[in-house]
Amino acid sequence: MLLHIDSSADAPADSVTRRLTADFARAWRARHPAAEYRHRDLAATAVPPLTGAYTTLGRRVERAGPVPPAKVSALAENPAEAREWELTLPLVTELAAARTVLLGVPMYNFSVPAALKAWIDRVTFPGAFLHPDSGESLLADTRVVAVMARGGAYGPDTGQAARDFQTPYLRAWWGRLGVRPEHLHPVAAELTRVDVLPFLAGREAAAAASLDRARAALSALAAA
Amino acid sequence: MLLHIDSSADAPADSVTRRLTADFARAWRARHPAAEYRHRDLAATAVPPLTGAYTTLGRRVERAGPVPPAKVSALAENPAEAREWELTLPLVTELAAARTVLLGVPMYNFSVPAALKAWIDRVTFPGAFLHPDSGESLLADTRVVAVMARGGAYGPDTGQAARDFQTPYLRAWWGRLGVRPEHLHPVAAELTRVDVLPFLAGREAAAAASLDRARAALSALAAA
Repeated sequence: MLLHIDSSADAPADSVTRRLTADFARAWRARHPAAEYRHRDLAATAVPPLTGAYTTLGRRVERAGPVPPAKVSALAENPAEAREWELTLPLVTELAAARTVLLGVPMYNFSVPAALKAWIDRVTFPGAFLHPDSGESLLADTRVVAVMARGGAYGPDTGQAARDFQTPYLRAWWGRLGVRPEHLHPVAAELTRVDVLPFLAGREAAAAASLDRARAALSALAAA
Repeated sequence: MLLHIDSSADAPADSVTRRLTADFARAWRARHPAAEYRHRDLAATAVPPLTGAYTTLGRRVERAGPVPPAKVSALAENPAEAREWELTLPLVTELAAARTVLLGVPMYNFSVPAALKAWIDRVTFPGAFLHPDSGESLLADTRVVAVMARGGAYGPDTGQAARDFQTPYLRAWWGRLGVRPEHLHPVAAELTRVDVLPFLAGREAAAAASLDRARAALSALAAA
């Protein structure tokens, strides 16, 4: 199953990540015509914010040790906690079932969009991706293609690398969930706001080259 | 004006950051009885997610050059854009008016909570904190006290420092808005989940000491 997640607030016409993830999804589906495909648009349908009932249930589950998702609802002690788990379980199940996760992530204020962080905060429920017997991650064979866009440039030679809380963050978080480093494929189009930000004037060719490289990398990943 | 912002999903009884920010606010208000005080609870009242109308309006404003907040509404071209600005302007005005910002920030999944990121994403509107004539930041004299809690430990000697996307992120973002580095005061209580996470067993004394240090630092800052 391909789980395609977009998090840009922009419509496709204005969103580099939405166009790139759509291209990847089209190529992947042409190659895997029988495979399941799901598209989750975190801007169109926001993941509900966490409440105290979510965190209280999470602590109870954490104290109980690894609890498989199928047994969490039995630990809910009131309707508010049961409701939080009803909102969470479909997201957990969907992610655990994905063979490939395609993630569209524009950089917002040096980091991932709040819409994506809301999904991350909810789906990271204690033990949700641990095999209840072995304790190993259910995501150890999951492949993640993270399609990123950045208004500026944040490479090692830019002096801005320390302000990149997008790629290193996704590496840390997916790693914690058990995705293997070699299964995480970050692909970034940089300088995407060259038409808006005055201080990027004159860098149009570099922006176009960055976008071309991202397209080529995604084509190769979709064909792999 | 003291602007007190909480972002924990937990009720005060379960939230280290909510208890610490409440202590700071009480001490500060006792010292400044005539000063205005505002409390914004991002968990109780979520900041609405961004839409394409917000980003479209933002790009138009950015292309027009620094536009003071009072003139942004004249650039809105439809009711959806006008509505986005109506949701944004009060947050911008409130932050610009604050002399001290008190921010409660639990670490969620190595970073700031989605509830706080939603506020950050909305309030970071192009030019909103720039003086229209001088181009200097309106926040150059604003003091920010960032009260953080972390389930584990992320100091330089822990091997976990690279997973801290909370303190370095807040430094980068507040710095971009124009808050001076010496005006940003991060105070962190660490190991706060010592009672929940089995691998922290035995570190109760270190957790208590970290909380005591945070309390002392906040007392000093509230008295400054």
